[in-house]
Amino acid sequence: MSSIDTILQEFRFERVLSHDTRTKLLFVLGQINGENCILSFEKSQYTDEDIPQLACQTHGLTDITQNDIYGWASARITTVNPDTRVKIIYPATDLHIRKYEQQARFLIQETPELFKMITWPYIQSLDPSRIQWVYNILEGKSEAERVIYRDTDPKTGFVILPDMKWDGSKESLYWVVIAARDDIYSLRSLTPDHLDLLKNIRQRACQLAEEKFGLKQKQLRLFVHYQPSYYHFHVHVTAVSFADAPGVVAGQAHLLDTVIDNLQLMADYYQRATLPFVVGERHPLCIAYQAQEDGIERQE
Amino acid sequence: MSSIDTILQEFRFERVLSHDTRTKLLFVLGQINGENCILSFEKSQYTDEDIPQLACQTHGLTDITQNDIYGWASARITTVNPDTRVKIIYPATDLHIRKYEQQARFLIQETPELFKMITWPYIQSLDPSRIQWVYNILEGKSEAERVIYRDTDPKTGFVILPDMKWDGSKESLYWVVIAARDDIYSLRSLTPDHLDLLKNIRQRACQLAEEKFGLKQKQLRLFVHYQPSYYHFHVHVTAVSFADAPGVVAGQAHLLDTVIDNLQLMADYYQRATLPFVVGERHPLCIAYQAQEDGIERQE
Repeated sequence: MSSIDTILQEFRFERVLSHDTRTKLLFVLGQINGENCILSFEKSQYTDEDIPQLACQTHGLTDITQNDIYGWASARITTVNPDTRVKIIYPATDLHIRKYEQQARFLIQETPELFKMITWPYIQSLDPSRIQWVYNILEGKSEAERVIYRDTDPKTGFVILPDMKWDGSKESLYWVVIAARDDIYSLRSLTPDHLDLLKNIRQRACQLAEEKFGLKQKQLRLFVHYQPSYYHFHVHVTAVSFADAPGVVAGQAHLLDTVIDNLQLMADYYQRATLPFVVGERHPLCIAYQAQEDGIERQE
Repeated sequence: MSSIDTILQEFRFERVLSHDTRTKLLFVLGQINGENCILSFEKSQYTDEDIPQLACQTHGLTDITQNDIYGWASARITTVNPDTRVKIIYPATDLHIRKYEQQARFLIQETPELFKMITWPYIQSLDPSRIQWVYNILEGKSEAERVIYRDTDPKTGFVILPDMKWDGSKESLYWVVIAARDDIYSLRSLTPDHLDLLKNIRQRACQLAEEKFGLKQKQLRLFVHYQPSYYHFHVHVTAVSFADAPGVVAGQAHLLDTVIDNLQLMADYYQRATLPFVVGERHPLCIAYQAQEDGIERQE
Protein backbone atom coordinates (compact mmCIF):
# COMPACT_ATOMS: atom_id res chain seq x y z
CA MET A 1 0.00 0.00 0.00
CA SER A 2 1.32 3.48 -0.84
CA SER A 3 1.64 6.00 1.97
CA ILE A 4 -1.62 7.40 3.34
CA ASP A 5 -0.53 10.87 2.30
CA THR A 6 -0.10 9.81 -1.33
CA ILE A 7 -3.43 7.99 -1.36
CA LEU A 8 -5.26 11.06 -0.06
CA GLN A 9 -3.68 13.30 -2.69
CA GLU A 10 -4.41 10.91 -5.59
CA PHE A 11 -7.97 10.08 -4.50
CA ARG A 12 -10.61 11.01 -7.10
CA PHE A 13 -14.01 11.39 -5.36
CA GLU A 14 -16.92 9.45 -6.87
CA ARG A 15 -19.82 9.27 -4.43
CA VAL A 16 -20.96 9.11 -0.80
CA LEU A 17 -21.51 5.54 0.40
CA SER A 18 -23.05 6.46 3.73
CA HIS A 19 -23.19 9.35 6.13
CA ASP A 20 -24.19 9.06 9.77
CA THR A 21 -24.94 12.67 10.56
CA ARG A 22 -25.48 11.87 14.23
CA THR A 23 -21.98 10.48 14.76
CA LYS A 24 -20.43 12.60 11.99
CA LEU A 25 -19.05 9.53 10.26
CA LEU A 26 -18.80 9.59 6.48
CA PHE A 27 -17.80 6.90 3.97
CA VAL A 28 -16.92 7.95 0.43
CA LEU A 29 -15.92 5.94 -2.61
CA GLY A 30 -13.32 7.08 -5.12
CA GLN A 31 -10.70 5.88 -7.55
CA ILE A 32 -6.91 5.75 -7.49
CA ASN A 33 -5.18 4.48 -10.64
CA GLY A 34 -8.37 2.76 -11.77
CA GLU A 35 -8.87 0.91 -8.48
CA ASN A 36 -11.58 1.45 -5.87
CA CYS A 37 -10.65 3.22 -2.68
CA ILE A 38 -12.92 3.80 0.32
CA LEU A 39 -12.15 6.70 2.64
CA SER A 40 -13.91 7.36 5.89
CA PHE A 41 -13.78 10.66 7.71
CA GLU A 42 -14.99 11.04 11.25
CA LYS A 43 -14.95 14.18 13.37
CA SER A 44 -12.78 13.74 16.46
CA GLN A 45 -14.30 14.03 19.88
CA TYR A 46 -13.28 16.93 22.12
CA THR A 47 -10.09 16.23 24.08
CA ASP A 48 -9.28 16.96 27.72
CA GLU A 49 -6.62 19.34 26.51
CA ASP A 50 -9.07 21.34 24.38
CA ILE A 51 -12.22 21.33 26.54
CA PRO A 52 -11.35 24.10 29.06
CA GLN A 53 -10.42 26.47 26.19
CA LEU A 54 -13.37 25.83 23.84
CA ALA A 55 -15.39 28.90 24.80
CA CYS A 56 -12.58 31.39 24.30
CA GLN A 57 -11.39 29.63 21.10
CA THR A 58 -14.85 29.96 19.50
CA HIS A 59 -15.00 32.46 16.66
CA GLY A 60 -16.82 33.22 13.40
CA LEU A 61 -20.35 32.95 14.86
CA THR A 62 -23.19 32.60 12.31
CA ASP A 63 -26.86 31.47 12.37
CA ILE A 64 -27.36 33.09 15.77
CA THR A 65 -30.67 32.50 17.58
CA GLN A 66 -31.53 33.73 21.09
CA ASN A 67 -34.67 33.02 23.11
CA ASP A 68 -34.94 33.83 26.83
CA ILE A 69 -32.07 32.04 28.63
CA TYR A 70 -31.23 29.92 25.53
CA GLY A 71 -28.90 30.73 22.64
CA TRP A 72 -27.66 28.82 19.56
CA ALA A 73 -25.02 29.51 16.92
CA SER A 74 -22.72 27.88 14.38
CA ALA A 75 -19.04 28.63 14.84
CA ARG A 76 -15.44 27.63 14.30
CA ILE A 77 -13.10 26.41 17.01
CA THR A 78 -9.34 26.11 16.78
CA THR A 79 -8.33 22.96 18.67
CA VAL A 80 -4.91 21.84 19.84
CA ASN A 81 -5.57 18.28 18.71
CA PRO A 82 -6.45 16.88 15.25
CA ASP A 83 -10.10 17.37 14.30
CA THR A 84 -10.49 14.30 12.09
CA ARG A 85 -10.01 10.54 12.07
CA VAL A 86 -9.31 9.15 8.60
CA LYS A 87 -9.59 5.53 7.51
CA ILE A 88 -8.51 4.10 4.17
CA ILE A 89 -9.35 0.85 2.42
CA TYR A 90 -7.31 0.50 -0.77
CA PRO A 91 -7.76 -1.37 -2.97
CA ALA A 92 -11.35 -1.92 -1.82
CA THR A 93 -13.39 -4.93 -2.98
CA ASP A 94 -17.08 -4.96 -3.89
CA LEU A 95 -17.75 -6.53 -0.51
CA HIS A 96 -16.15 -3.56 1.24
CA ILE A 97 -18.27 -1.19 -0.81
CA ARG A 98 -21.43 -3.11 0.03
CA LYS A 99 -20.52 -3.12 3.70
CA TYR A 100 -20.38 0.67 3.93
CA GLU A 101 -23.13 1.53 1.49
CA GLN A 102 -26.38 2.68 3.03
CA GLN A 103 -29.00 0.02 2.58
CA ALA A 104 -32.20 -1.41 4.02
CA ARG A 105 -31.48 -3.77 6.90
CA PHE A 106 -33.36 -6.94 7.79
CA LEU A 107 -33.59 -9.04 10.94
CA ILE A 108 -33.08 -12.63 9.81
CA GLN A 109 -34.11 -15.60 11.99
CA GLU A 110 -31.33 -18.16 11.64
CA THR A 111 -32.61 -21.55 12.82
CA PRO A 112 -30.06 -24.39 13.19
CA GLU A 113 -31.41 -25.81 9.91
CA LEU A 114 -31.01 -22.52 8.02
CA PHE A 115 -27.51 -22.16 9.48
CA LYS A 116 -26.52 -25.51 7.96
CA MET A 117 -28.30 -24.84 4.69
CA ILE A 118 -27.28 -21.21 4.03
CA THR A 119 -24.89 -19.61 6.53
CA TRP A 120 -22.34 -22.40 6.82
CA PRO A 121 -21.87 -22.83 3.03
CA TYR A 122 -21.47 -19.03 2.81
CA ILE A 123 -18.72 -19.05 5.47
CA GLN A 124 -16.92 -21.87 3.65
CA SER A 125 -17.10 -19.99 0.36
CA LEU A 126 -15.18 -17.01 1.77
CA ASP A 127 -11.62 -16.54 0.55
CA PRO A 128 -9.34 -17.41 3.52
CA SER A 129 -6.95 -14.58 2.56
CA ARG A 130 -9.65 -12.14 3.73
CA ILE A 131 -8.56 -12.74 7.29
CA GLN A 132 -4.82 -12.74 6.59
CA TRP A 133 -4.65 -9.58 8.72
CA VAL A 134 -5.89 -11.60 11.73
CA TYR A 135 -3.03 -14.08 11.35
CA ASN A 136 -0.59 -11.21 10.84
CA ILE A 137 -1.61 -9.92 14.27
CA LEU A 138 -1.61 -13.35 15.95
CA GLU A 139 1.84 -14.16 14.53
CA GLY A 140 3.24 -10.78 15.50
CA LYS A 141 3.85 -9.75 11.88
CA SER A 142 1.53 -6.71 12.05
CA GLU A 143 0.55 -4.24 14.72
CA ALA A 144 2.89 -5.96 17.21
CA GLU A 145 3.57 -2.61 18.92
CA ARG A 146 -0.18 -2.08 19.43
CA VAL A 147 -0.77 -5.37 21.24
CA ILE A 148 -1.85 -4.76 24.85
CA TYR A 149 -1.61 -8.36 26.00
CA ARG A 150 -0.67 -11.72 24.51
CA ASP A 151 -1.45 -15.19 25.91
CA THR A 152 0.16 -17.81 23.63
CA ASP A 153 -1.65 -20.91 24.93
CA PRO A 154 -2.91 -22.70 21.77
CA LYS A 155 -6.30 -23.53 23.37
CA THR A 156 -7.06 -20.70 25.78
CA GLY A 157 -4.75 -18.00 24.40
CA PHE A 158 -5.57 -14.71 22.70
CA VAL A 159 -4.29 -11.26 21.79
CA ILE A 160 -5.83 -8.05 23.15
CA LEU A 161 -5.43 -4.86 21.16
CA PRO A 162 -7.14 -1.50 20.89
CA ASP A 163 -10.02 -1.35 18.41
CA MET A 164 -9.38 1.06 15.57
CA LYS A 165 -12.50 2.98 16.69
CA TRP A 166 -10.97 3.68 20.11
CA ASP A 167 -9.83 7.23 20.87
CA GLY A 168 -7.68 6.13 23.83
CA SER A 169 -9.92 7.56 26.57
CA LYS A 170 -11.20 5.62 29.60
CA GLU A 171 -14.82 6.64 28.96
CA SER A 172 -14.92 5.18 25.46
CA LEU A 173 -12.61 2.20 26.00
CA TYR A 174 -12.87 -0.18 23.04
CA TRP A 175 -10.57 -3.18 22.82
CA VAL A 176 -10.82 -6.31 20.76
CA VAL A 177 -9.70 -9.76 21.92
CA ILE A 178 -8.75 -12.22 19.15
CA ALA A 179 -8.60 -15.92 20.04
CA ALA A 180 -5.35 -17.72 19.18
CA ARG A 181 -7.14 -20.88 18.00
CA ASP A 182 -8.65 -20.79 14.54
CA ASP A 183 -11.39 -23.42 14.85
CA ILE A 184 -14.11 -21.19 16.34
CA TYR A 185 -15.95 -19.48 13.53
CA SER A 186 -18.68 -17.77 15.50
CA LEU A 187 -21.18 -18.19 18.36
CA ARG A 188 -22.53 -21.26 16.53
CA SER A 189 -19.23 -23.12 17.13
CA LEU A 190 -19.23 -22.63 20.89
CA THR A 191 -19.56 -25.58 23.29
CA PRO A 192 -18.60 -26.06 26.96
CA ASP A 193 -15.13 -27.07 25.63
CA HIS A 194 -14.55 -23.36 25.07
CA LEU A 195 -15.53 -22.20 28.55
CA ASP A 196 -11.90 -22.06 29.68
CA LEU A 197 -11.04 -19.75 26.78
CA LEU A 198 -14.09 -17.53 27.34
CA LYS A 199 -13.47 -17.22 31.08
CA ASN A 200 -9.77 -16.61 30.49
CA ILE A 201 -10.63 -13.75 28.12
CA ARG A 202 -13.12 -12.24 30.58
CA GLN A 203 -10.80 -12.54 33.55
CA ARG A 204 -7.75 -11.09 31.79
CA ALA A 205 -9.52 -8.28 29.91
CA CYS A 206 -11.20 -7.13 33.15
CA GLN A 207 -7.92 -7.31 35.05
CA LEU A 208 -6.11 -5.23 32.40
CA ALA A 209 -8.88 -2.61 32.25
CA GLU A 210 -8.69 -2.28 36.02
CA GLU A 211 -4.87 -2.01 36.03
CA LYS A 212 -4.70 0.48 33.19
CA PHE A 213 -7.84 2.57 33.75
CA GLY A 214 -9.26 1.66 37.17
CA LEU A 215 -12.34 0.27 35.39
CA LYS A 216 -14.07 -2.48 37.37
CA GLN A 217 -15.71 -5.51 35.78
CA LYS A 218 -19.17 -3.96 36.22
CA GLN A 219 -18.00 -0.93 34.24
CA LEU A 220 -17.18 -3.11 31.21
CA ARG A 221 -19.39 -4.56 28.51
CA LEU A 222 -17.84 -7.61 26.82
CA PHE A 223 -19.70 -8.95 23.82
CA VAL A 224 -19.56 -11.10 20.71
CA HIS A 225 -21.17 -10.17 17.40
CA TYR A 226 -23.53 -12.39 15.44
CA GLN A 227 -22.92 -12.42 12.54
CA PRO A 228 -19.32 -11.43 13.19
CA SER A 229 -17.64 -9.26 10.56
CA TYR A 230 -14.94 -11.97 10.22
CA TYR A 231 -15.23 -15.65 11.08
CA HIS A 232 -12.38 -15.98 13.53
CA PHE A 233 -13.54 -15.83 17.13
CA HIS A 234 -13.14 -12.42 18.77
CA VAL A 235 -14.67 -10.51 21.65
CA HIS A 236 -15.36 -6.77 21.91
CA VAL A 237 -14.53 -5.01 25.17
CA THR A 238 -16.09 -1.60 25.75
CA ALA A 239 -16.70 0.71 28.70
CA VAL A 240 -20.33 0.67 29.89
CA SER A 241 -20.08 4.48 29.89
CA PHE A 242 -19.65 4.24 26.09
CA ALA A 243 -23.40 3.66 26.00
CA ASP A 244 -23.83 3.87 22.26
CA ALA A 245 -20.58 2.26 21.17
CA PRO A 246 -20.98 0.98 17.61
CA GLY A 247 -22.46 -2.51 17.43
CA VAL A 248 -23.79 -2.97 20.97
CA VAL A 249 -27.35 -3.30 19.72
CA ALA A 250 -29.51 -6.33 20.65
CA GLY A 251 -29.73 -8.71 17.71
CA GLN A 252 -26.06 -8.10 16.95
CA ALA A 253 -24.23 -8.02 20.31
CA HIS A 254 -24.34 -11.02 22.67
CA LEU A 255 -22.91 -10.31 26.12
CA LEU A 256 -20.01 -12.63 26.95
CA ASP A 257 -21.51 -13.19 30.42
CA THR A 258 -24.73 -14.44 28.83
CA VAL A 259 -22.81 -16.62 26.38
CA ILE A 260 -20.93 -18.27 29.26
CA ASP A 261 -24.16 -18.63 31.26
CA ASN A 262 -26.01 -20.19 28.30
CA LEU A 263 -23.23 -22.77 27.76
CA GLN A 264 -23.42 -23.68 31.44
CA LEU A 265 -27.23 -23.95 31.39
CA MET A 266 -27.36 -26.02 28.17
CA ALA A 267 -24.26 -27.53 26.59
CA ASP A 268 -25.59 -27.38 23.01
CA TYR A 269 -27.39 -24.02 23.37
CA TYR A 270 -25.60 -22.42 20.39
CA GLN A 271 -26.23 -25.42 18.15
CA ARG A 272 -29.95 -25.49 19.04
CA ALA A 273 -30.88 -21.82 19.39
CA THR A 274 -32.43 -19.68 16.70
CA LEU A 275 -29.99 -16.78 16.39
CA PRO A 276 -31.44 -13.61 14.86
CA PHE A 277 -29.06 -11.29 13.05
CA VAL A 278 -29.36 -7.99 11.22
CA VAL A 279 -27.94 -7.74 7.73
CA GLY A 280 -28.00 -5.24 4.89
CA GLU A 281 -30.14 -6.08 1.85
CA ARG A 282 -27.14 -6.32 -0.51
CA HIS A 283 -25.10 -8.65 1.70
CA PRO A 284 -24.66 -12.12 0.13
CA LEU A 285 -26.23 -13.72 3.21
CA CYS A 286 -29.34 -11.57 2.92
CA ILE A 287 -29.65 -12.41 -0.77
CA ALA A 288 -29.26 -16.14 0.00
CA TYR A 289 -31.91 -16.04 2.74
CA GLN A 290 -34.24 -14.09 0.46
CA ALA A 291 -33.79 -16.68 -2.31
CA GLN A 292 -34.62 -19.47 0.14
CA GLU A 293 -37.76 -17.62 1.28
CA ASP A 294 -38.85 -17.02 -2.32
CA GLY A 295 -38.30 -20.72 -3.04
CA ILE A 296 -40.59 -21.70 -0.18
CA GLU A 297 -43.26 -19.27 -1.36
CA ARG A 298 -43.12 -20.71 -4.87
CA GLN A 299 -43.60 -24.21 -3.49
CA GLU A 300 -46.60 -23.18 -1.42
CA MET B 1 -29.22 37.76 27.85
CA SER B 2 -25.96 39.33 26.67
CA SER B 3 -24.78 38.58 23.15
CA ILE B 4 -23.51 35.03 22.56
CA ASP B 5 -20.10 36.43 21.67
CA THR B 6 -19.82 38.22 25.03
CA ILE B 7 -20.99 35.14 26.95
CA LEU B 8 -18.37 32.95 25.25
CA GLN B 9 -15.59 35.41 26.05
CA GLU B 10 -16.62 35.84 29.72
CA PHE B 11 -17.26 32.12 30.37
CA ARG B 12 -15.04 30.68 33.14
CA PHE B 13 -14.82 26.90 32.69
CA GLU B 14 -15.62 24.76 35.75
CA ARG B 15 -16.25 21.16 34.74
CA VAL B 16 -17.58 18.74 32.15
CA LEU B 17 -21.22 17.76 32.77
CA SER B 18 -21.40 15.08 30.08
CA HIS B 19 -19.60 14.08 26.93
CA ASP B 20 -21.04 11.81 24.29
CA THR B 21 -17.88 10.87 22.45
CA ARG B 22 -19.77 9.00 19.74
CA THR B 23 -21.89 11.96 18.66
CA LYS B 24 -19.18 14.44 19.71
CA LEU B 25 -21.60 16.34 21.91
CA LEU B 26 -20.18 17.99 25.01
CA PHE B 27 -21.87 19.86 27.89
CA VAL B 28 -19.72 22.00 30.17
CA LEU B 29 -20.58 24.07 33.21
CA GLY B 30 -18.98 27.41 33.98
CA GLN B 31 -19.55 30.78 35.61
CA ILE B 32 -20.26 34.24 34.28
CA ASN B 33 -20.49 37.05 36.88
CA GLY B 34 -21.17 34.51 39.65
CA GLU B 35 -24.02 32.83 37.77
CA ASN B 36 -24.10 29.32 36.29
CA CYS B 37 -23.82 28.97 32.53
CA ILE B 38 -24.07 25.72 30.55
CA LEU B 39 -22.41 25.56 27.14
CA SER B 40 -22.75 22.72 24.69
CA PHE B 41 -20.40 22.16 21.80
CA GLU B 42 -21.18 19.70 19.05
CA LYS B 43 -19.05 18.90 15.99
CA SER B 44 -20.88 19.75 12.76
CA GLN B 45 -21.68 17.02 10.27
CA TYR B 46 -19.90 17.05 6.90
CA THR B 47 -21.66 19.22 4.31
CA ASP B 48 -22.37 18.52 0.64
CA GLU B 49 -20.13 21.45 -0.20
CA ASP B 50 -17.18 20.01 1.72
CA ILE B 51 -17.47 16.28 1.04
CA PRO B 52 -15.92 16.07 -2.47
CA GLN B 53 -12.84 18.03 -1.27
CA LEU B 54 -12.17 16.26 2.02
CA ALA B 55 -9.34 14.01 0.79
CA CYS B 56 -7.29 16.80 -0.77
CA GLN B 57 -7.99 19.14 2.18
CA THR B 58 -6.59 16.60 4.67
CA HIS B 59 -3.24 17.56 6.18
CA GLY B 60 -1.10 17.16 9.31
CA LEU B 61 -1.35 13.35 9.47
CA THR B 62 -0.36 11.75 12.80
CA ASP B 63 -0.90 8.35 14.56
CA ILE B 64 -0.51 6.54 11.26
CA THR B 65 -1.17 2.79 11.17
CA GLN B 66 -1.13 0.56 8.10
CA ASN B 67 -1.99 -3.15 7.84
CA ASP B 68 -2.54 -4.87 4.49
CA ILE B 69 -5.17 -2.89 2.55
CA TYR B 70 -6.20 -0.84 5.63
CA GLY B 71 -4.81 2.46 6.89
CA TRP B 72 -5.70 4.84 9.70
CA ALA B 73 -4.55 8.30 10.74
CA SER B 74 -5.52 11.39 12.67
CA ALA B 75 -5.55 14.58 10.65
CA ARG B 76 -6.81 18.11 10.19
CA ILE B 77 -9.25 19.20 7.51
CA THR B 78 -10.02 22.75 6.45
CA THR B 79 -13.74 22.94 5.73
CA VAL B 80 -15.74 25.62 3.94
CA ASN B 81 -18.52 25.48 6.51
CA PRO B 82 -18.44 26.04 10.32
CA ASP B 83 -17.15 23.03 12.25
CA THR B 84 -19.13 23.52 15.47
CA ARG B 85 -22.66 23.99 16.80
CA VAL B 86 -22.78 25.95 20.06
CA LYS B 87 -25.67 26.10 22.53
CA ILE B 88 -25.88 28.33 25.58
CA ILE B 89 -28.06 28.22 28.69
CA TYR B 90 -27.48 31.31 30.85
CA PRO B 91 -28.32 31.72 33.62
CA ALA B 92 -28.71 27.96 34.15
CA THR B 93 -30.68 26.47 37.09
CA ASP B 94 -29.78 23.39 39.15
CA LEU B 95 -32.40 21.46 37.21
CA HIS B 96 -30.61 22.27 33.94
CA ILE B 97 -27.33 21.08 35.47
CA ARG B 98 -28.82 17.78 36.69
CA LYS B 99 -30.41 17.21 33.30
CA TYR B 100 -27.08 17.31 31.49
CA GLU B 101 -24.91 15.73 34.16
CA GLN B 102 -23.48 12.28 33.45
CA GLN B 103 -24.21 9.45 35.85
CA ALA B 104 -21.84 6.46 36.09
CA ARG B 105 -23.56 3.28 34.89
CA PHE B 106 -22.82 -0.26 36.00
CA LEU B 107 -23.48 -3.67 34.48
CA ILE B 108 -24.91 -5.80 37.30
CA GLN B 109 -24.94 -9.62 37.11
CA GLU B 110 -28.28 -10.70 38.54
CA THR B 111 -28.10 -14.40 39.42
CA PRO B 112 -31.37 -16.16 40.41
CA GLU B 113 -30.19 -15.92 44.05
CA LEU B 114 -29.51 -12.18 43.84
CA PHE B 115 -32.86 -11.69 42.14
CA LYS B 116 -34.62 -13.26 45.13
CA MET B 117 -32.45 -11.49 47.67
CA ILE B 118 -32.35 -7.97 46.23
CA THR B 119 -34.38 -7.34 43.06
CA TRP B 120 -37.64 -9.02 44.11
CA PRO B 121 -37.88 -7.21 47.48
CA TYR B 122 -37.17 -3.95 45.61
CA ILE B 123 -40.02 -4.63 43.16
CA GLN B 124 -42.38 -5.40 46.04
CA SER B 125 -41.39 -2.21 47.84
CA LEU B 126 -42.51 -0.04 44.92
CA ASP B 127 -45.68 1.97 45.45
CA PRO B 128 -48.35 0.30 43.22
CA SER B 129 -49.76 3.73 42.35
CA ARG B 130 -46.59 4.29 40.28
CA ILE B 131 -48.14 2.17 37.51
CA GLN B 132 -51.68 3.49 37.86
CA TRP B 133 -51.16 5.04 34.40
CA VAL B 134 -50.76 1.50 32.95
CA TYR B 135 -54.14 0.44 34.34
CA ASN B 136 -55.70 3.67 33.11
CA ILE B 137 -54.59 2.73 29.59
CA LEU B 138 -55.69 -0.92 29.90
CA GLU B 139 -59.10 0.11 31.26
CA GLY B 140 -59.58 2.76 28.57
CA LYS B 141 -59.59 5.62 31.08
CA SER B 142 -56.51 7.33 29.59
CA GLU B 143 -55.04 7.73 26.13
CA ALA B 144 -57.96 5.76 24.64
CA GLU B 145 -57.71 7.81 21.44
CA ARG B 146 -54.03 6.86 21.06
CA VAL B 147 -54.59 3.10 21.22
CA ILE B 148 -53.71 1.41 17.91
CA TYR B 149 -55.06 -2.03 18.79
CA ARG B 150 -56.79 -3.70 21.72
CA ASP B 151 -57.17 -7.46 22.42
CA THR B 152 -59.25 -7.92 25.57
CA ASP B 153 -58.52 -11.60 26.23
CA PRO B 154 -57.57 -11.76 29.96
CA LYS B 155 -54.71 -14.23 29.32
CA THR B 156 -53.37 -13.43 25.86
CA GLY B 157 -54.69 -9.87 25.43
CA PHE B 158 -52.82 -6.55 25.21
CA VAL B 159 -52.98 -2.95 24.08
CA ILE B 160 -50.70 -1.49 21.37
CA LEU B 161 -49.99 2.23 21.39
CA PRO B 162 -47.37 4.61 20.02
CA ASP B 163 -44.36 5.26 22.23
CA MET B 164 -43.93 8.87 23.37
CA LYS B 165 -40.55 8.93 21.57
CA TRP B 166 -42.11 8.10 18.17
CA ASP B 167 -42.15 10.86 15.55
CA GLY B 168 -44.83 9.09 13.48
CA SER B 169 -42.55 8.10 10.59
CA LYS B 170 -42.16 4.60 9.16
CA GLU B 171 -38.35 4.68 9.46
CA SER B 172 -38.38 5.36 13.19
CA LEU B 173 -41.49 3.36 14.12
CA TYR B 174 -41.71 2.92 17.89
CA TRP B 175 -44.74 1.27 19.48
CA VAL B 176 -45.25 -0.27 22.89
CA VAL B 177 -47.40 -3.33 23.63
CA ILE B 178 -48.77 -3.61 27.18
CA ALA B 179 -50.03 -7.02 28.36
CA ALA B 180 -53.58 -7.11 29.77
CA ARG B 181 -52.67 -9.54 32.57
CA ASP B 182 -50.94 -8.09 35.60
CA ASP B 183 -49.07 -11.14 36.92
CA ILE B 184 -45.96 -10.88 34.71
CA TYR B 185 -43.51 -8.51 36.35
CA SER B 186 -40.58 -8.94 34.01
CA LEU B 187 -38.54 -11.49 32.02
CA ARG B 188 -37.95 -13.36 35.31
CA SER B 189 -41.67 -14.25 35.49
CA LEU B 190 -41.86 -15.84 32.05
CA THR B 191 -42.59 -19.56 31.59
CA PRO B 192 -43.95 -21.61 28.66
CA ASP B 193 -47.44 -20.74 30.03
CA HIS B 194 -46.91 -17.31 28.50
CA LEU B 195 -45.93 -18.48 25.01
CA ASP B 196 -49.45 -17.93 23.67
CA LEU B 197 -49.38 -14.33 24.86
CA LEU B 198 -45.87 -13.69 23.46
CA LYS B 199 -46.69 -15.22 20.08
CA ASN B 200 -50.00 -13.37 19.93
CA ILE B 201 -48.17 -10.06 20.53
CA ARG B 202 -45.57 -10.85 17.86
CA GLN B 203 -48.12 -11.98 15.31
CA ARG B 204 -50.47 -9.02 15.79
CA ALA B 205 -47.84 -6.29 16.05
CA CYS B 206 -46.18 -7.51 12.84
CA GLN B 207 -49.51 -7.71 11.05
CA LEU B 208 -50.42 -4.14 12.06
CA ALA B 209 -47.01 -2.74 11.04
CA GLU B 210 -47.41 -4.40 7.65
CA GLU B 211 -50.97 -3.09 7.19
CA LYS B 212 -50.18 0.45 8.30
CA PHE B 213 -46.62 0.93 6.97
CA GLY B 214 -45.83 -2.01 4.70
CA LEU B 215 -43.14 -3.08 7.16
CA LYS B 216 -42.44 -6.81 7.05
CA GLN B 217 -41.64 -8.88 10.12
CA LYS B 218 -37.93 -8.90 9.25
CA GLN B 219 -37.99 -5.08 9.23
CA LEU B 220 -39.13 -4.98 12.86
CA ARG B 221 -37.22 -5.36 16.10
CA LEU B 222 -39.44 -6.48 19.00
CA PHE B 223 -37.78 -6.51 22.40
CA VAL B 224 -38.26 -6.56 26.15
CA HIS B 225 -36.20 -4.51 28.59
CA TYR B 226 -34.41 -5.92 31.61
CA GLN B 227 -34.74 -4.25 34.05
CA PRO B 228 -37.98 -2.81 32.67
CA SER B 229 -38.76 0.81 33.59
CA TYR B 230 -42.06 -0.44 35.10
CA TYR B 231 -42.88 -3.93 36.35
CA HIS B 232 -45.91 -4.72 34.22
CA PHE B 233 -45.05 -6.82 31.17
CA HIS B 234 -44.62 -4.82 27.97
CA VAL B 235 -42.85 -5.21 24.63
CA HIS B 236 -41.15 -2.53 22.52
CA VAL B 237 -41.70 -2.57 18.76
CA THR B 238 -39.27 -0.58 16.60
CA ALA B 239 -38.25 -0.45 12.95
CA VAL B 240 -34.90 -2.16 12.26
CA SER B 241 -34.03 0.96 10.23
CA PHE B 242 -34.18 2.93 13.51
CA ALA B 243 -30.76 1.48 14.28
CA ASP B 244 -30.00 3.67 17.25
CA ALA B 245 -33.45 3.73 18.81
CA PRO B 246 -33.14 4.44 22.55
CA GLY B 247 -32.81 1.28 24.63
CA VAL B 248 -31.96 -1.34 22.00
CA VAL B 249 -28.55 -2.00 23.52
CA ALA B 250 -27.44 -5.52 24.50
CA GLY B 251 -27.65 -5.93 28.28
CA GLN B 252 -30.92 -3.99 28.28
CA ALA B 253 -32.92 -5.19 25.26
CA HIS B 254 -33.85 -8.87 24.85
CA LEU B 255 -35.31 -9.74 21.44
CA LEU B 256 -38.80 -11.21 21.71
CA ASP B 257 -37.81 -13.91 19.20
CA THR B 258 -34.96 -14.99 21.47
CA VAL B 259 -37.21 -14.90 24.54
CA ILE B 260 -39.71 -17.22 22.81
CA ASP B 261 -36.89 -19.47 21.59
CA ASN B 262 -35.32 -19.70 25.06
CA LEU B 263 -38.66 -20.68 26.64
CA GLN B 264 -39.04 -23.42 24.03
CA LEU B 265 -35.46 -24.66 24.54
CA MET B 266 -35.65 -24.67 28.35
CA ALA B 267 -38.90 -24.18 30.24
CA ASP B 268 -37.30 -22.53 33.28
CA TYR B 269 -34.67 -20.53 31.36
CA TYR B 270 -35.68 -17.17 32.89
CA GLN B 271 -35.73 -18.57 36.43
CA ARG B 272 -32.26 -20.14 36.01
CA ALA B 273 -30.37 -17.63 33.86
CA THR B 274 -28.07 -14.92 35.13
CA LEU B 275 -29.55 -11.74 33.67
CA PRO B 276 -27.15 -8.78 33.41
CA PHE B 277 -28.61 -5.30 33.51
CA VAL B 278 -27.24 -1.76 33.33
CA VAL B 279 -28.22 0.75 35.98
CA GLY B 280 -27.21 4.29 36.99
CA GLU B 281 -25.17 4.70 40.17
CA ARG B 282 -27.90 6.69 41.95
CA HIS B 283 -30.66 4.12 41.24
CA PRO B 284 -31.94 2.28 44.38
CA LEU B 285 -31.16 -1.11 42.80
CA CYS B 286 -27.56 -0.09 42.17
CA ILE B 287 -27.22 1.10 45.75
CA ALA B 288 -28.73 -2.19 47.05
CA TYR B 289 -26.37 -4.34 44.93
CA GLN B 290 -23.42 -2.22 46.03
CA ALA B 291 -24.37 -2.65 49.71
CA GLN B 292 -24.56 -6.44 49.21
CA GLU B 293 -21.12 -6.45 47.54
CA ASP B 294 -19.62 -4.35 50.34
CA GLY B 295 -21.12 -6.77 52.89
CA ILE B 296 -19.44 -9.73 51.21
CA GLU B 297 -16.11 -7.91 51.12
CA ARG B 298 -16.36 -7.12 54.84
CA GLN B 299 -16.98 -10.79 55.60
CA GLU B 300 -13.98 -11.93 53.57
